[in-house]
Amino acid sequence: MAAGSLRRVGILTGGGDAPGLNAVIRAVAKSLMTKKDIRVIGIEDGFQGLIENRMRELSWGDVSGILQSGGTILGTSNKANPFENPTLRDGKVVRLDLSEQTLRNIEKWQLDAIVCIGGDGTMTISRRLVERGVPVIGVPKTIDNDLYGTDITFGYDTAVSIGAEAIDRIHTTAQSHHRIMLVEIMGRNAGWLALGAGIAGGADVILIPEIEYELDAICAKVEERSRIGRRFSIIAVSEGAKPRGGEVVVSRIVKDSVEAIRLGGISIKLGNEIEDRLGRETRATVLGHLQRGGSPTAFDRILATRFGVGAADLLVQGKFNQMVALRGDQIVSVPIHEVGGRTRTVPPDSPLLAAAEAVGTCLGIAC
Amino acid sequence: MAAGSLRRVGILTGGGDAPGLNAVIRAVAKSLMTKKDIRVIGIEDGFQGLIENRMRELSWGDVSGILQSGGTILGTSNKANPFENPTLRDGKVVRLDLSEQTLRNIEKWQLDAIVCIGGDGTMTISRRLVERGVPVIGVPKTIDNDLYGTDITFGYDTAVSIGAEAIDRIHTTAQSHHRIMLVEIMGRNAGWLALGAGIAGGADVILIPEIEYELDAICAKVEERSRIGRRFSIIAVSEGAKPRGGEVVVSRIVKDSVEAIRLGGISIKLGNEIEDRLGRETRATVLGHLQRGGSPTAFDRILATRFGVGAADLLVQGKFNQMVALRGDQIVSVPIHEVGGRTRTVPPDSPLLAAAEAVGTCLGIAC
Amino acid sequence: MAAGSLRRVGILTGGGDAPGLNAVIRAVAKSLMTKKDIRVIGIEDGFQGLIENRMRELSWGDVSGILQSGGTILGTSNKANPFENPTLRDGKVVRLDLSEQTLRNIEKWQLDAIVCIGGDGTMTISRRLVERGVPVIGVPKTIDNDLYGTDITFGYDTAVSIGAEAIDRIHTTAQSHHRIMLVEIMGRNAGWLALGAGIAGGADVILIPEIEYELDAICAKVEERSRIGRRFSIIAVSEGAKPRGGEVVVSRIVKDSVEAIRLGGISIKLGNEIEDRLGRETRATVLGHLQRGGSPTAFDRILATRFGVGAADLLVQGKFNQMVALRGDQIVSVPIHEVGGRTRTVPPDSPLLAAAEAVGTCLGIAC
Amino acid sequence: MAAGSLRRVGILTGGGDAPGLNAVIRAVAKSLMTKKDIRVIGIEDGFQGLIENRMRELSWGDVSGILQSGGTILGTSNKANPFENPTLRDGKVVRLDLSEQTLRNIEKWQLDAIVCIGGDGTMTISRRLVERGVPVIGVPKTIDNDLYGTDITFGYDTAVSIGAEAIDRIHTTAQSHHRIMLVEIMGRNAGWLALGAGIAGGADVILIPEIEYELDAICAKVEERSRIGRRFSIIAVSEGAKPRGGEVVVSRIVKDSVEAIRLGGISIKLGNEIEDRLGRETRATVLGHLQRGGSPTAFDRILATRFGVGAADLLVQGKFNQMVALRGDQIVSVPIHEVGGRTRTVPPDSPLLAAAEAVGTCLGIAC
Repeated sequence: MAAGSLRRVGILTGGGDAPGLNAVIRAVAKSLMTKKDIRVIGIEDGFQGLIENRMRELSWGDVSGILQSGGTILGTSNKANPFENPTLRDGKVVRLDLSEQTLRNIEKWQLDAIVCIGGDGTMTISRRLVERGVPVIGVPKTIDNDLYGTDITFGYDTAVSIGAEAIDRIHTTAQSHHRIMLVEIMGRNAGWLALGAGIAGGADVILIPEIEYELDAICAKVEERSRIGRRFSIIAVSEGAKPRGGEVVVSRIVKDSVEAIRLGGISIKLGNEIEDRLGRETRATVLGHLQRGGSPTAFDRILATRFGVGAADLLVQGKFNQMVALRGDQIVSVPIHEVGGRTRTVPPDSPLLAAAEAVGTCLGIAC
Repeated sequence: MAAGSLRRVGILTGGGDAPGLNAVIRAVAKSLMTKKDIRVIGIEDGFQGLIENRMRELSWGDVSGILQSGGTILGTSNKANPFENPTLRDGKVVRLDLSEQTLRNIEKWQLDAIVCIGGDGTMTISRRLVERGVPVIGVPKTIDNDLYGTDITFGYDTAVSIGAEAIDRIHTTAQSHHRIMLVEIMGRNAGWLALGAGIAGGADVILIPEIEYELDAICAKVEERSRIGRRFSIIAVSEGAKPRGGEVVVSRIVKDSVEAIRLGGISIKLGNEIEDRLGRETRATVLGHLQRGGSPTAFDRILATRFGVGAADLLVQGKFNQMVALRGDQIVSVPIHEVGGRTRTVPPDSPLLAAAEAVGTCLGIAC
Repeated sequence: MAAGSLRRVGILTGGGDAPGLNAVIRAVAKSLMTKKDIRVIGIEDGFQGLIENRMRELSWGDVSGILQSGGTILGTSNKANPFENPTLRDGKVVRLDLSEQTLRNIEKWQLDAIVCIGGDGTMTISRRLVERGVPVIGVPKTIDNDLYGTDITFGYDTAVSIGAEAIDRIHTTAQSHHRIMLVEIMGRNAGWLALGAGIAGGADVILIPEIEYELDAICAKVEERSRIGRRFSIIAVSEGAKPRGGEVVVSRIVKDSVEAIRLGGISIKLGNEIEDRLGRETRATVLGHLQRGGSPTAFDRILATRFGVGAADLLVQGKFNQMVALRGDQIVSVPIHEVGGRTRTVPPDSPLLAAAEAVGTCLGIAC
Repeated sequence: MAAGSLRRVGILTGGGDAPGLNAVIRAVAKSLMTKKDIRVIGIEDGFQGLIENRMRELSWGDVSGILQSGGTILGTSNKANPFENPTLRDGKVVRLDLSEQTLRNIEKWQLDAIVCIGGDGTMTISRRLVERGVPVIGVPKTIDNDLYGTDITFGYDTAVSIGAEAIDRIHTTAQSHHRIMLVEIMGRNAGWLALGAGIAGGADVILIPEIEYELDAICAKVEERSRIGRRFSIIAVSEGAKPRGGEVVVSRIVKDSVEAIRLGGISIKLGNEIEDRLGRETRATVLGHLQRGGSPTAFDRILATRFGVGAADLLVQGKFNQMVALRGDQIVSVPIHEVGGRTRTVPPDSPLLAAAEAVGTCLGIAC
């Protein structure tokens, strides 16, 4: 499709909410409306709205004053998938192919392209839409920062800030009570969030999925601190952290296909083990949903705005089926089919790991 | 003892830490040092330092620049008790009377009086010290706000603020995902904290220990909101909330006498019940230790300063064995023997309850 | 008018915006809508909307999700006055009586009563409306906290918090650079705000309009601190502070009747004098509009909600021509004609002044 | 000098304080102490301490718990310069060469190298020390972000955050009162700070030194907003912004060589001009020192830690006379003699400018 023929663009947000979603929506919409006289159609609740034909045209007023607000004005859904939509049938979850009706909805609304803001799952679905002939632009979103193809995603800086603030608060209790305090931070597959929050909060131990931890090493660090008069320790734990040769502690009970309430897993198990081993008071705090809510940081507002503007640029240039990405200080694009299904974990030679170690942080192994 | 003979005053912080402890320490110490040439002796780790003779004289520098900082520069302990100190003997906890050595330590340091900053437990021990002839001034502290004898305690406003901020953050996720979100807030015996945070955060349902809740009423509220297009609900739950005729959910595992790691109790149980009943996505977040850490609010800094100054005034006037208290806008004092062992719960005719109901908040019963 | 006949209530916000206005609007509207089937009419831009007949009915959705937001969804105006409205005529400001058209607008919209949320000016106009037969309920608002008839007003706690946070930030610069830093805080007639922020921020000197300051005393305090090794000082200054026998520094240029841009007055003048006297680096910061914006604190959200609920209660009871007020911990009401035109200043025996002095703060006079 | 012979390292902070200085000090000191058995000597008040021989050895305890704190535990000075130190002589400022005594002090303390944390001025002095044979490692610091040689400096993200937060707060007042609000932000030579804060805060107009503004363009933007019902506008102004062909408004009075109290310049002048032109209420707020104080953001804590670790690495490797720098995501080093005296301004093709324009922000020229 030639750029000149771009008249109507759909936009949706998929997967877990993240601070900055509204900033992207605003930037895409204002960019297109301001200069190019293109109509922007908001799709409700992610792919669910695409499946169920729930959309509405966005006005300038709809996208004004939302830069600062958390969540997404469009709503989102974690599970909807036009190609295999989970549906309860006779008490069982079956996966239905609803792609035909989805494509018809796109046609009905005369969408020339769709901006899909989301993480790995969203990009995987986007790729399949592309394969069916729908022009798509992806915008990367995951507070875990583990999405392939971009140096960083919006939402990550806010989540790191919230994690660091939590460690700051817990620091005063740890110090006053001479306790070992564990803070469980999101990140099932990648440790970016615990690593960032741990460095920023000055955690004494940081445990991430990429480095299997040894209880001995952790306890040795705690004891070494005691010897130099630091009678408390703070341990930042990724929810996906696991002991050497051990398993990830399931922190969510799965009932049917419905994800159940988060219990907090590894931090409680590990806290008990440390308490048993050292006979010291230990407490765990699970940050959970606090990490993804609230107003985005200035950094994330700027990054999200740049991503949104970048997406609009690609649309106008007719460069479809790309995901915008940050590379160094530049907004670039990567083919959407290269992105889905790959996880960006913390590499062993990450400068963040080196920095943490240099200031004396234990990474769960002999240190 | 006549006021003129006051030369050396001990000061300790007991029980869980609370934002504002340092502001009290500073105000007591500066008040006494500034005008009255009295020496102030900091006792380490609450009554444990008194038992173990760990004290140090405080200088002006020690108490400068601490107004803003959370925790306590003196350290605290939850369990030390001169009259029945929990001690491990052959794997069992026995309670030892260490009052003689404690009194000797007080004599050694020539303490003319002790300022005890703490909650119900601290006031109970203080009363027993008074009975043994030690002049004591109490300063009330509990983020739960359930201490008898004072309208409000420092730390409460900060804890309410943190709770409200948590609800703000969770609000964006609840709204974006159309979920039911529960936030578990401290308060085993009294609902002040959940009530304050719930009103300030605009929770749709607030559950407190004083009002046994009915699952039916909660679900009815959630459904009613759905009908008017509000597809999410936020439930603020005191950790001590319980169903009509039911039991408090034990949220802490007790191993021997050692309090174990907090698991989060009622919010998870209740969340599962609501999910089962309504078939709606439900998530729970347990604030835990985040509520008591960090820098005190301006309100708490001012209140804590006033309490500290009030305590110093009582000392100089020789009015011992009193706890400072807030009554309306005045700092007053109440006899310390009237305070310990009594809990101030939310009364049925509390204007806060009426205000919550008036704006449409469900209190867990037919609403 | 009997309570039963209450069908339509107008609501307006007048004067400078304050954090918590939306919380009051929400509480009034939800209280009335929830239980009593009364329609709530939002009047735009304070009395200006009443004069110009700009109003709209508020829905439940209009007043949902606004508890946390600063400003006022209704808009406000500083100058509109139905009885003497400032109007430019041939380059001069004349004051016109527009009360007849205002009363006609009230009739057109069939308003049975009006809730007027505002400060001294708003209450003075409200009293005149009452005299013309319009049933009014007042809700007190002023971040300066100088309104007669209530212990405290919403917005004050937020403004104190912002002031204290500013002092916290400036503290690090003052200490790093060994400077004297002045922070100019709102309060032309009363020193509540500077006093609260100063105590909460640990200012070394606090200057308020109620106590004429002496340059000698301030410089002596700064020098005394230097002698004990504290090479910096922080001075919290009310914009209305003035030297003994001196004048208030005009911090606003008045062009015609239009208030011009704030320049910052007393803090700059005083800073220069201190620098000249002591030869020490001095810097001033004028908080200005930062003090009245942003999300209200939890305290203010609760107080504003209670005021709104209290106003609705008075309406339903038919107790008109009252202003809701806080007395101790109770919401009470005072006749509106007692309120306007009186300023509540900091009394010489204020416990806040005593507390500030007790911890060593200089109040601008020999200390 | 070979790496193996590194035994004693001095460290100083020069120029205006910035959030993250303590994080750098901690990272340098802990890195060196942890692994390499090197002593770290803290130099007080920047180059002034070096001139006056005021230094002290830092212990592990000295650099613990300071990650979160603003300012600098070492103190700083804006004016001290070993090569031309400003000194009052007979009421005039003369510049003295004190380099000999400075070098003697370095010898007395047996400093094998000095870590100089600071901005352009500090790097210029560092270069001259290098020329005199003192091994130096530079760490870049400037909240203005205009230092040559590094993509970004610590302190910038915090300053942007504070600026954005200020705009958020002022937004509610602007909207409630339908006003034009100007926010004056630091940046005499470069507009990075106003640009970042303006984008993150959603300012309608952003004025930076690099683009000379036209009053016509600004007023046109404000009027255009009015036409679409946005009756308020927010203008973010760099202190160094200037009209086409005009001069920078001097915002500081210079008395002798002593910088006088900040008055706020351009925002007040421009605000008056807009008010005169449009007859609309206009207000200005000058952020001033609020921008550089307080706790650093998580981003800055991480960057400062990485810079500190990088500096320690260079020391241990014996790679002296370099400044650490961020290039993309890597910590690199640049020769210190390339840095001083050059300013990094916002280039015309900056993606930040393009992003701002894309979402409809006016940059002060026809837009």
